[in-house]
Amino acid sequence: MSVDRIRAAIRDVPDFPEPGIIFKDITPLLKDPSLFRETIDIFCEQVDASNVTKLAAVDARGFLFAGAISERLHVGVIPIRKQGKLPYLTYEKRYDLEYGTATLAVHQDAFEAGERVAIVDDLLATGGTARATAELVETCGATVASMLFVIELAFLNGRGKLAGYNVFAPVVY
Amino acid sequence: MSVDRIRAAIRDVPDFPEPGIIFKDITPLLKDPSLFRETIDIFCEQVDASNVTKLAAVDARGFLFAGAISERLHVGVIPIRKQGKLPYLTYEKRYDLEYGTATLAVHQDAFEAGERVAIVDDLLATGGTARATAELVETCGATVASMLFVIELAFLNGRGKLAGYNVFAPVVY
Repeated sequence: MSVDRIRAAIRDVPDFPEPGIIFKDITPLLKDPSLFRETIDIFCEQVDASNVTKLAAVDARGFLFAGAISERLHVGVIPIRKQGKLPYLTYEKRYDLEYGTATLAVHQDAFEAGERVAIVDDLLATGGTARATAELVETCGATVASMLFVIELAFLNGRGKLAGYNVFAPVVY
Repeated sequence: MSVDRIRAAIRDVPDFPEPGIIFKDITPLLKDPSLFRETIDIFCEQVDASNVTKLAAVDARGFLFAGAISERLHVGVIPIRKQGKLPYLTYEKRYDLEYGTATLAVHQDAFEAGERVAIVDDLLATGGTARATAELVETCGATVASMLFVIELAFLNGRGKLAGYNVFAPVVY
């Protein structure tokens, strides 16, 4: 089954980015075009079923998957970026990390009111980034139709921050 | 013609990231799935013609285009990232910016020896990032078959740093 092959390709890297953390490395998946395509297959079923009109691609690994989904389904991509990267007028959303805060931004003209948006990222961890992204989409007057991740770290309970959203992640740890 | 439509979609944002700079904003192009697809069409002709076996996707906007090319042509993607982002064993390359330096990294197991690689990014400016990326590809024992950019800022003479490489950019300023 596709999901088993995708899971098998994800590499555990211990002690990254800091001691005690086991990092889930998706680069072996990206390197294998068949596995990458199977991942996109799985996402596209969700996007199609949700009548999505735009993708919100989360900086930076989310860009890889959103680019491929856009190509397959002919849906435009909106980059959700770290503060200071988007050149035009932005909305910004600050959110808490384990230590400190981070800020995400979206162009104010990114979405039309009423659009249905799929948020695309590689990993659901604590849910802070996804939650901030959803709030940016909603600030633009659009609706979050689904949230797509390759991997969910269920022990961090990211879904706890995402109640009411349609969260999808094929590979769960 | 496709290139004219792509060019027309690129937005000039004055004084970003600093006073006096006119930033070329590709987000209107990404938002329009037909223009995004036409851009991928143009890239795919180059990639196909060069018998490319892998894409080297430059952090972060290069990821959007490389994801789409991978999906279309069934070629694996290797992320070339800023220092500290890749979890596994890396090769690193430091290079000069206008002020200061930057460092790019690639996983040591990213490419097989002899692979033919297309470097994918949105913008060719001074050529420093592209040059460092090419050197990382070559350190892995692979060959740079082509360098693909949406936009070339010809007045910065990035090609001067990229002599001997097959540089392609449909939109030139």
